[in-house]
Amino acid sequence: MPNIRQQALDYHEFPSPGKMAVCLTKPAKTSHDLSLAYSPGVAEPVREIAADPENAYRYTAKGNTVAVISNGTAILGLGNLGPLASKPVMEGKALLFKTFANIDATDIEVTNDTPEQFINTVASIADTFGGINLEDIKAPECFEIEKELIKRCKVPVFHDDQHGTAIVTAAGMINALEIQGKKIEEAVFVCLGAGAAAIACMSMLIKCGAQREHIYMLDRKGVIHTQREDLNEYKALFANNTDKRTLQDAIKGADGFLGLSGPNLLSAEDIKLMAENPVIFACSNPDPEIKPELAKETRPDVIMGTGRSDYPNQVNNVLCFPFLFRGALDVRAKEINDEMKVAAVYALAGLAKEPVLQNVLEAYPDVAELNFGAEYVLPKPMDPRLLPQIARAVAQAAIDSGASELTELPAGYFS
Amino acid sequence: MPNIRQQALDYHEFPSPGKMAVCLTKPAKTSHDLSLAYSPGVAEPVREIAADPENAYRYTAKGNTVAVISNGTAILGLGNLGPLASKPVMEGKALLFKTFANIDATDIEVTNDTPEQFINTVASIADTFGGINLEDIKAPECFEIEKELIKRCKVPVFHDDQHGTAIVTAAGMINALEIQGKKIEEAVFVCLGAGAAAIACMSMLIKCGAQREHIYMLDRKGVIHTQREDLNEYKALFANNTDKRTLQDAIKGADGFLGLSGPNLLSAEDIKLMAENPVIFACSNPDPEIKPELAKETRPDVIMGTGRSDYPNQVNNVLCFPFLFRGALDVRAKEINDEMKVAAVYALAGLAKEPVLQNVLEAYPDVAELNFGAEYVLPKPMDPRLLPQIARAVAQAAIDSGASELTELPAGYFS
Repeated sequence: MPNIRQQALDYHEFPSPGKMAVCLTKPAKTSHDLSLAYSPGVAEPVREIAADPENAYRYTAKGNTVAVISNGTAILGLGNLGPLASKPVMEGKALLFKTFANIDATDIEVTNDTPEQFINTVASIADTFGGINLEDIKAPECFEIEKELIKRCKVPVFHDDQHGTAIVTAAGMINALEIQGKKIEEAVFVCLGAGAAAIACMSMLIKCGAQREHIYMLDRKGVIHTQREDLNEYKALFANNTDKRTLQDAIKGADGFLGLSGPNLLSAEDIKLMAENPVIFACSNPDPEIKPELAKETRPDVIMGTGRSDYPNQVNNVLCFPFLFRGALDVRAKEINDEMKVAAVYALAGLAKEPVLQNVLEAYPDVAELNFGAEYVLPKPMDPRLLPQIARAVAQAAIDSGASELTELPAGYFS
Repeated sequence: MPNIRQQALDYHEFPSPGKMAVCLTKPAKTSHDLSLAYSPGVAEPVREIAADPENAYRYTAKGNTVAVISNGTAILGLGNLGPLASKPVMEGKALLFKTFANIDATDIEVTNDTPEQFINTVASIADTFGGINLEDIKAPECFEIEKELIKRCKVPVFHDDQHGTAIVTAAGMINALEIQGKKIEEAVFVCLGAGAAAIACMSMLIKCGAQREHIYMLDRKGVIHTQREDLNEYKALFANNTDKRTLQDAIKGADGFLGLSGPNLLSAEDIKLMAENPVIFACSNPDPEIKPELAKETRPDVIMGTGRSDYPNQVNNVLCFPFLFRGALDVRAKEINDEMKVAAVYALAGLAKEPVLQNVLEAYPDVAELNFGAEYVLPKPMDPRLLPQIARAVAQAAIDSGASELTELPAGYFS
């Protein structure tokens, strides 16, 4: 078995440190080239932008650029290791932006102690970019940070750990429920974990039709209910007026389970309590809340998803954020609003129902079947239709909801 | 005659906005690639950096990255047009970093109202990069900003408008004085202009041997002298105990003139007053303090330099900053100190004395002679020896002065 640890380190170190570089898109060889790229020619676009800030989209890289920004307070599942340690992750995210949507992303690691300082820093540099992708910022600070930055920035601000996760989870859950013959409006959900992603996922399910009172969210102390007095304002939104207190109480008769907590927190006994034809998304990574093998053995009627690429139904943020930003940038959306997020959910869910393309089949030679069904509720990341279909849906939603000043999609846009 | 304005705008707009993009340096095609570049493999370099921050140089792009940062308060000669309008210039500077020294530079435009806010912002993001190049920040705020950022950042911070200009000017002036048969220790200098670049240039001449009392600096009110009570602390360093009050008073008998002021502020009558064999660097751009033709006609014994590429002896910052940063990055210097700057001056001056290479000659077919002399006191930007010679000199100075923790140059470094 290859040493994955050493492979990952070697990948990052050789032949040169890191994963990305800068490259020129214009000639810069002769004195004449340089006199256009820099002084004196560069004064012309400067004057044009001073006259009208929108010209920055015409003469600079702004419109195709996203900053991937973190303070390193919640890196992957590793916790608060500080901003510099988050750099490989932010560079990795930038790589995904480029690979999947040809967006030129730059990582920025911010060393601020307070949310207020972090907000001030990001707001101060935001105009440099076409959009801001926040990443690996711990809850509950991330809520305030995102809310305030959305207010203060003229470009879209998006916390992927919340909303990217929510969009992909909702798309997969909608499809899984459909396959199981359940209506989202009637389904009962248990969410184990009450961090930023959990709250965003449950909010998204509600936007897609789930009933708030059908949702039981649990933190380390158990079910979040209306009698508890230890809830922050974000958890309080999900306080259920219920007698249920434990995971066992909550999961009894539930249709859907979402795990965003930790390894092996869900037992075979627990899932025996769920309703017929349940859906379990056990997204703790790399070790899920319950092993898919155990879940399938205990409940042959389950549809199972995880965060892992080596099992079916991987709930993977890369299915959304590159394409969502592509659409937002292409119509110069000033924000990424709920309409745009919901459009992404349905575009993603819809794509899973289309016949799988040959290149995707070839990338998964071990998988017997890749068609809409219990083992395929979400498309695969290398599906080339993700880009046009999600970007187009998001761009259209931006126009329809007024987030873009355009009145229609650019002619021929991904059509 | 081609429309340069339209050429410059077209260059920036087509076929895609801006001048640079991001590109990958590692494979990112298969699931396996992505599992190393991002989750789960990326956790390994994260852990290594959390254990030792120096590992960021090993596993991320940090060590080859420079941020080009401005607040847009003094863009080229155009004044305070705001941060966004400075973006084409900062992107242009990033392009020069890449073209000349293969440094991956990122532009950041900062929208802060006060120097303190600007300092806080830059200090907060500095760890992301291997170095910080400040640009187009107005005086006197730029002095405080640079001083404070040098204190607060663990990576080199360099205000190119000050020190890059000073290094190139000093190198050219040293060579011109030598050709004119003058000693810098005895030469009398007039500096018209008392902004950031002027103060840095005169400070650098002093570091290279000029006597402080031989320098007459002038601002809009005339000679800066010890009786004036309207001087900020930076100008006050150059207050001369003298009876001279006007440009005419000061320039009488002067050996060297440096103009960093505005077009046509130096007359033929003025330069008739200078000593035999004078040196005039008229660097106001694009229109110098005195036209080279007029200066040569009036004083056939002059050595003349300008900021323009269409005259001999262009004083051009690109002769220094890419190579200076190359050297600093390559030995992980924690700062760019005076020793490193002075080393750059002498490396640059020394290179002008070497025989010109064929590729440079070919780039200037109209120039009769390109050898050390009155029309060639500085190398040309496309001289391929700038990179090894300046980078090596700067890196060695960093080691000798303790700015780098290395005790010797990396084996074979540009040798």
